[in-house]
Amino acid sequence: MEDPASKYFSCSSQERAIFEAGIKLGSIYHQYTGIPINESNVDLLERAIERAVKVQPFVEEVNIKIDRNKVGKNQSSYKYKTLTGDMLNVSLTINYEGSRVEGSMHYVEEMDYPLMTFRVIK
Amino acid sequence: MEDPASKYFSCSSQERAIFEAGIKLGSIYHQYTGIPINESNVDLLERAIERAVKVQPFVEEVNIKIDRNKVGKNQSSYKYKTLTGDMLNVSLTINYEGSRVEGSMHYVEEMDYPLMTFRVIK
Amino acid sequence: MEDPASKYFSCSSQERAIFEAGIKLGSIYHQYTGIPINESNVDLLERAIERAVKVQPFVEEVNIKIDRNKVGKNQSSYKYKTLTGDMLNVSLTINYEGSRVEGSMHYVEEMDYPLMTFRVIK
Amino acid sequence: MEDPASKYFSCSSQERAIFEAGIKLGSIYHQYTGIPINESNVDLLERAIERAVKVQPFVEEVNIKIDRNKVGKNQSSYKYKTLTGDMLNVSLTINYEGSRVEGSMHYVEEMDYPLMTFRVIK
Repeated sequence: MEDPASKYFSCSSQERAIFEAGIKLGSIYHQYTGIPINESNVDLLERAIERAVKVQPFVEEVNIKIDRNKVGKNQSSYKYKTLTGDMLNVSLTINYEGSRVEGSMHYVEEMDYPLMTFRVIK
Repeated sequence: MEDPASKYFSCSSQERAIFEAGIKLGSIYHQYTGIPINESNVDLLERAIERAVKVQPFVEEVNIKIDRNKVGKNQSSYKYKTLTGDMLNVSLTINYEGSRVEGSMHYVEEMDYPLMTFRVIK
Repeated sequence: MEDPASKYFSCSSQERAIFEAGIKLGSIYHQYTGIPINESNVDLLERAIERAVKVQPFVEEVNIKIDRNKVGKNQSSYKYKTLTGDMLNVSLTINYEGSRVEGSMHYVEEMDYPLMTFRVIK
Repeated sequence: MEDPASKYFSCSSQERAIFEAGIKLGSIYHQYTGIPINESNVDLLERAIERAVKVQPFVEEVNIKIDRNKVGKNQSSYKYKTLTGDMLNVSLTINYEGSRVEGSMHYVEEMDYPLMTFRVIK
């Protein structure tokens, strides 16, 4: 696929893949947190997020894991929670014209923060 | 199920069901719009929204239909859209202690508006 | 203002006001949670949410209070949080053709739940 | 400021700045679209988004412009719209340990797409 947006960029394909990884991770956090969740829909929700992320350009692979321990514990009397960033484990691969980058998000305990990071795949 | 929140309300069970229908409809619009969508994930997304809505209290039934014509037309060169309110057809039944209300959302052409409405089920 | 949507409803104006209160509260929770927040933007964010809610039909009054204690405590090394439902204290008045309903949301400790409720204003 | 997350990255500071620009742009699109908007709150909403984005790490500058023509036209009888990606003009500067990258989002007519792009600032 030729990229119709290429004229709006002046960068290497590796830099572009890094940028696209950032976009997808930021999008996931802010789009899906807040969705009601308990044991009954956690599997389906993981699959639905994965498939929606794959709709976006240059996404080769995506894996979403929601932490069952956090879904399950501290249940309110209203018996469900809403999805939060610290429950999310995301791994995705961007392929931009052959340059591949793996982006990921996971909760880092010592920072108390859902950290987004990436690595270039050689 | 006894409602642990009942002491925070002074209203009829019909009024409560109407209120809960409003909550669910407002939630759906603002939680799910923005999700990337094309033909590949529209079915799965409908099911995932339905199951997430059912996680919330007092939801007896929910049906989500995303307008395929709107998903399909005006495709950009980037070949997907994001979910918007005018694509959404929602029907859900709230049952609060036997009082049942059907809430719905659908796009009303003449108002150019995704209208939320309800009716009491006798 | 005449309501162009009135033909889509068959209910009392009090019931309609209750329904609209539910819509607005559900919308607030799912639209604004996730926004980055610390002491520097909490005041401005409260005002911006209030003004956006007032854009919607039949909203006479709205007051948003974000719990400063929750904004401030448990700061990560990345020094901010994102808005969550348990930080939000919402009070709003719906006026539908003279019928007035106060909707509210606040965190109920004993339920560990951001409860939405309402009362009819006589 | 030392970056407590630096050990989770193996990349140049320029690449890191590019990644962070992507995160912020993806976040903005998926967090703020859906907010009710008309002429009464558009200025305040721009400021509130700017201040919230600045709360996030490494954001040196951010400018949000919402297209008044799109806010104003096609008004429904319910007299407001909700914020969509094609209304948004975003420009922001990331500074990661001295490496600066400008990220931007604007609607590209020929692609019918709210394109996110970036350039390295020398």
